[in-house]
Amino acid sequence: MSAARKPTLAVVGATGAVGTVMLGILSSREDVWGEIRLIASPRSAGRRLVVRGEEIEVIALSEEAFEGVDVAMFDVPDEVSAQWAPIAAAKGAVAVDNSGAFRMDPDVPLVVPEVNAHAARVRPRGIISNPNCTTLSMIVAMGALHAEFGLTELIVSSYQAASGAGQPGIDTLREQLTKVAGSNLGTQPGDVRRAVGDFGPFPAPLALNVVPWAGSLKEDGWSSEELKVRNESRKILGLPDLRVTATCVRVPVITTHSLAVHARFENEVTVERAHEILGSAPGVVVSDNPAEGEFPTPADVVGTDPTWVGRVRRSLDDPQALELFVCGDNLRKGAALNTAQIAEVVAAELTAAG
Amino acid sequence: MSAARKPTLAVVGATGAVGTVMLGILSSREDVWGEIRLIASPRSAGRRLVVRGEEIEVIALSEEAFEGVDVAMFDVPDEVSAQWAPIAAAKGAVAVDNSGAFRMDPDVPLVVPEVNAHAARVRPRGIISNPNCTTLSMIVAMGALHAEFGLTELIVSSYQAASGAGQPGIDTLREQLTKVAGSNLGTQPGDVRRAVGDFGPFPAPLALNVVPWAGSLKEDGWSSEELKVRNESRKILGLPDLRVTATCVRVPVITTHSLAVHARFENEVTVERAHEILGSAPGVVVSDNPAEGEFPTPADVVGTDPTWVGRVRRSLDDPQALELFVCGDNLRKGAALNTAQIAEVVAAELTAAG
Repeated sequence: MSAARKPTLAVVGATGAVGTVMLGILSSREDVWGEIRLIASPRSAGRRLVVRGEEIEVIALSEEAFEGVDVAMFDVPDEVSAQWAPIAAAKGAVAVDNSGAFRMDPDVPLVVPEVNAHAARVRPRGIISNPNCTTLSMIVAMGALHAEFGLTELIVSSYQAASGAGQPGIDTLREQLTKVAGSNLGTQPGDVRRAVGDFGPFPAPLALNVVPWAGSLKEDGWSSEELKVRNESRKILGLPDLRVTATCVRVPVITTHSLAVHARFENEVTVERAHEILGSAPGVVVSDNPAEGEFPTPADVVGTDPTWVGRVRRSLDDPQALELFVCGDNLRKGAALNTAQIAEVVAAELTAAG
Repeated sequence: MSAARKPTLAVVGATGAVGTVMLGILSSREDVWGEIRLIASPRSAGRRLVVRGEEIEVIALSEEAFEGVDVAMFDVPDEVSAQWAPIAAAKGAVAVDNSGAFRMDPDVPLVVPEVNAHAARVRPRGIISNPNCTTLSMIVAMGALHAEFGLTELIVSSYQAASGAGQPGIDTLREQLTKVAGSNLGTQPGDVRRAVGDFGPFPAPLALNVVPWAGSLKEDGWSSEELKVRNESRKILGLPDLRVTATCVRVPVITTHSLAVHARFENEVTVERAHEILGSAPGVVVSDNPAEGEFPTPADVVGTDPTWVGRVRRSLDDPQALELFVCGDNLRKGAALNTAQIAEVVAAELTAAG
């Protein structure tokens, strides 16, 4: 790439839930890109979408679509990424993949720029993975605390939004809400189940309910989402033996995942020092003054970039453990924003290399 | 009391959210009571409510109202119980109190019949306390596991229903739902906050949101609800040094609290043995087959009596710890049902004493 030219970016999956947020993010961040090419399934080809104030026609996914692309972001299902990210890489692009297809591949770095930007430089397959949205919703805050106190254990319970299951998740929750609003439902066993009809991508009704399941069934009763939180946290933090336990639960929120986190450290902790660390960590905002009603909630965090942390308490039984409540927009930092940040790290490297 | 006479029961707070459920429960359980007297604030006096298929006129709370009462249930705010439960006791009734006024009083037993029915017999003040609804939603299951494995630590995150804040909580959520249904709210910071207007008893919007707060602010950033889970679990289980950490979060569900529980034991555990213990424990139902979509959710559990347990997993890092997801109807086992069960224990004692 010539030093004068800005790199070319391809957005694969430009018309999906994450892709839509991505176009907004690309339009609002510092403009490091030359051409931005929008790619989607043949079904969506020909649609015109606005990015950086400019209408661009969506082109169909094909080998030729990656011609001349420097960085290709993938916001598509696992199987599409598994097939096409290596093709993009073979065409010379650095693929930044937001699917689960490559995250645990030892030859693919799993990157959160605030925590392990350095890892993005070593990419034997030409692919960099973006973590799962649930892991991403807490990991920037955990990385900052780990750097000071030395993390030894995470026990987390999630409160995951409908949009973690993509646009069908959003649509399902919205439709269910219209069916339960104005009713007296939610007081008799199964009344909501019978009233909402379609569960969409969820295994139970989501309106007026919480559903202790996300993803697919893995060994010993764990869900894929719970194992992702475990395995990805270990890989990002570079702590292969970190003790991590997650229980993943879907809640009737459109967008923004929350997590209640019990974090144990090698050293004694104080709330004051935790506040200082988190308050000065890039990408983290502390909102922690319950006396004034200040703590993060999805309704306030949605649409924002940072990881919000509140309810910081030192465990009453354990001076080496903190309790925290963390919120992050799962479509922004949890997906599109982190992907954009990784792509910018690569763009800076390519531009510097000239 | 003469052996021939069935004991007289007073229900104080008969017109509230818990009181209403109580009348249904009294109508459906084995009929151990003679007269049932309904008592409420002077404002509600004169209303006629149905219990055991019979209309009864509500009378105003007064000293005379407890004349001839053997057992008086209190489903009223803390300050009303604090004043009136001792008056009922002085009039010779056994007060069974569902408020927080006496729970941690060393001279007042805190009773869950499946776990510590024996404690109900020793009541120096003539008062027995019913635990907080969040503690009650898990404690029957935890008591059963403790009896086998020896509990050493609980780390719990709650998913608490609106009705935990009484009828105003239910009304607030219902009203907020009508305002967000059919909208595109929940995608921009504060859009839900601005749209719903009144937060009712909650410190933030509850529709399309989760709120990491329940109760009042106590020392070091803990909420009163979180400390109740800790202190009451210890007292009920008779384990004053049990390590207990809770993070209490309100979710947009009408009724039924859920808890994600990390439970650590003195001995190694297996999922199989945990299933056996829970499956044979009185008042517990196991629903744990994710392959078939079987796990408890509030929408299915609401209106039922047992504690439902699912998602049982052995911690991957710790053979002495289990992860569980537990649901219990907070107005039934979490309040009215447990109060009724305590009252029945007392009734049996009084009847046997003759």
